[in-house]
Amino acid sequence: MIDLARIRAETPATARRAYLHNAGAALMPTPVVDAIKRHLDLEAEIGGYAAAAAEAAQLDAVYGSVARLVNAQPDEIALMDNATIAWQMAFYSLPFRAGDRILTAEAEYAANYVAYLQTAKRTGVTIDVVPSDADGALDVGALERMIDKRVKLIAITWVPTNGGLTNPAAAVGRIARAHGIPYLLDACQAVGQMPVDVEAVGCDILSATGRKFLRGPRGTGFLYVRKSLLETLEPPMIDHFAAPWVARDRYALRPDARRFENWENNYAARAGLGVAVDYALALGLDAIEARCRLLARRLRAGLAEIRGVTVRDLGRDPSAIVSFTVDGHDAPAVVAAAAAAGITIGASPPSSTRLDAEARALPPLVRASPHYYNTEDEVDRLVAVCSNLT
Amino acid sequence: MIDLARIRAETPATARRAYLHNAGAALMPTPVVDAIKRHLDLEAEIGGYAAAAAEAAQLDAVYGSVARLVNAQPDEIALMDNATIAWQMAFYSLPFRAGDRILTAEAEYAANYVAYLQTAKRTGVTIDVVPSDADGALDVGALERMIDKRVKLIAITWVPTNGGLTNPAAAVGRIARAHGIPYLLDACQAVGQMPVDVEAVGCDILSATGRKFLRGPRGTGFLYVRKSLLETLEPPMIDHFAAPWVARDRYALRPDARRFENWENNYAARAGLGVAVDYALALGLDAIEARCRLLARRLRAGLAEIRGVTVRDLGRDPSAIVSFTVDGHDAPAVVAAAAAAGITIGASPPSSTRLDAEARALPPLVRASPHYYNTEDEVDRLVAVCSNLT
Repeated sequence: MIDLARIRAETPATARRAYLHNAGAALMPTPVVDAIKRHLDLEAEIGGYAAAAAEAAQLDAVYGSVARLVNAQPDEIALMDNATIAWQMAFYSLPFRAGDRILTAEAEYAANYVAYLQTAKRTGVTIDVVPSDADGALDVGALERMIDKRVKLIAITWVPTNGGLTNPAAAVGRIARAHGIPYLLDACQAVGQMPVDVEAVGCDILSATGRKFLRGPRGTGFLYVRKSLLETLEPPMIDHFAAPWVARDRYALRPDARRFENWENNYAARAGLGVAVDYALALGLDAIEARCRLLARRLRAGLAEIRGVTVRDLGRDPSAIVSFTVDGHDAPAVVAAAAAAGITIGASPPSSTRLDAEARALPPLVRASPHYYNTEDEVDRLVAVCSNLT
Repeated sequence: MIDLARIRAETPATARRAYLHNAGAALMPTPVVDAIKRHLDLEAEIGGYAAAAAEAAQLDAVYGSVARLVNAQPDEIALMDNATIAWQMAFYSLPFRAGDRILTAEAEYAANYVAYLQTAKRTGVTIDVVPSDADGALDVGALERMIDKRVKLIAITWVPTNGGLTNPAAAVGRIARAHGIPYLLDACQAVGQMPVDVEAVGCDILSATGRKFLRGPRGTGFLYVRKSLLETLEPPMIDHFAAPWVARDRYALRPDARRFENWENNYAARAGLGVAVDYALALGLDAIEARCRLLARRLRAGLAEIRGVTVRDLGRDPSAIVSFTVDGHDAPAVVAAAAAAGITIGASPPSSTRLDAEARALPPLVRASPHYYNTEDEVDRLVAVCSNLT
């Protein structure tokens, strides 16, 4: 059960603004900010190396926390500076040859897609986009029909950035596993708003950020790589932490997922990430998901009743990302009107998810993303702002 | 002129310990810590995206500060999460073919060397180590004689991690430029303790960290890439910030050095880095270097007088890194004895600089690295600790 009074007291800014921009960067709870500052103070007092040594047990425990969050083993987790570098270090370690195929989905995120394009240019791999079903989600039947021996990767975004769509990650996982194809899942918008279980989903690689629904600091992210796969992957770039220099002409890759890390880390941010993960685990991801969905449903229902507002979310089971447009007002104008009413929301440009945006001829979308710490009243206030615009 | 009383007041821990571990991670001055915390507080109050937008001018100014620090243009600077990723993003973007040669130096850092080994394995490039001269520095004459058409990169560490050596970076630059060979300079231990001028040195790529002599936060670093070179380099990995997704099947690399960055950044840390750079620039790198060298000379002279202590520094013009061994006491024991006396120093294992360590049959070295904020008395106290050990 979520104790809203306590949680909002630990998120002091909630007393001053309605923050509905959690798909961008959520508000960190006070314990997260305090953990970062505490480590910084320790670094300023005894130096960065001594601080990391003094806090070694807590810092090492972050691997365990993240592993619990996604139901993996700690040695399958790498702690990274952000979700992009996490995704990249795994993706770019995969070998492709001319004629190989990468299967992805229509709402794939721009950061990932340009990496596919670069890899296609370098290797001759083909990028094939699985069509969406009638509800706008990845069409699992179509995916199954597209599988052949040339498919060397299935890579999708679980919860795309530009709306409520939740792709059928577990159904994709069953197909990937049945055909022995590596499965890379971008879980940036999923982690922290709903339960994530790499065994249930069946993904081999999962990347995520700290700053979104997980409520961690900017400059944090993590990577999960299944043990059986990671042992076959050589990172695209290495240092002496990832691959100790064991003899004059030889390095030896670490056996664990930390082969995707560097030696140097922002330990203050990492300490904050650990507290954020523990905070989410203590609340329980089922309870978090239930409240996120409840607030998002309320928001969608309220917006749907306004003539001139179009909710743009896809899928049968939408997440806590609510995307919409308001006739006669572009997305920045709606964001500004909300800001004037003390409500923080964001916008999603077509270039973030170009294939989906082109297929649906989307303008920039307004994006509102409630979290468990929001109230029904905050959601209703945003509905009222939009109603007043029309 | 360095106002030691003010500087030590802005580095409060100096009242409680003699911190001589600046080649590891220096103590951040209070304005740096405050800048990080201020940005974190702003993020917790208005959210991460709004905080970055509100501080956009100051955050953008960090490029200018770093550019001034190394005498470059702001569009030749990328702000990175650490020096390793900075170095890697540049190095791994260089094209090599079988038969090409990389020239490096004996005291090259482990992180860089394993990257050479990985690239040699992948491409067939040869790694050739320029011998050292009688003083232990890179032999410029030998380098000149090793140049041929197959040399596609000269990559060295300016101030190696394991001692006082300062390699002749500018003499190397003249050779690189005369032969039109790209020149990558690892300046991790140079930046912040001495003037760095990419024009005077003649390097094409320079990487550095925030946390060492620059006194910035952990989890910061930067990359300089000469404009004429960077336009020819495609980063080994890209996202939609480095390479916007401009059409369905096309991305366009950014024209500036930020093509080596990611979209997501730790802006709090970046704000701290900017303050650290401005702090160094305000003191003046000439004054900083003069005081660093003075204290290092004093330390070396004191240690040299102790029977049973061997100073291990190479080169004619040693930096503020003082390396030594004490007969009958291994490096960890000396570090511990200093810690018991309230003095923080470190150790450098042979694996950090394997070629040099093997050539000199070095054990782990004690490493003491004074900075301008240290006092003569602190240096003398370390000498006394070592004297008492023998």
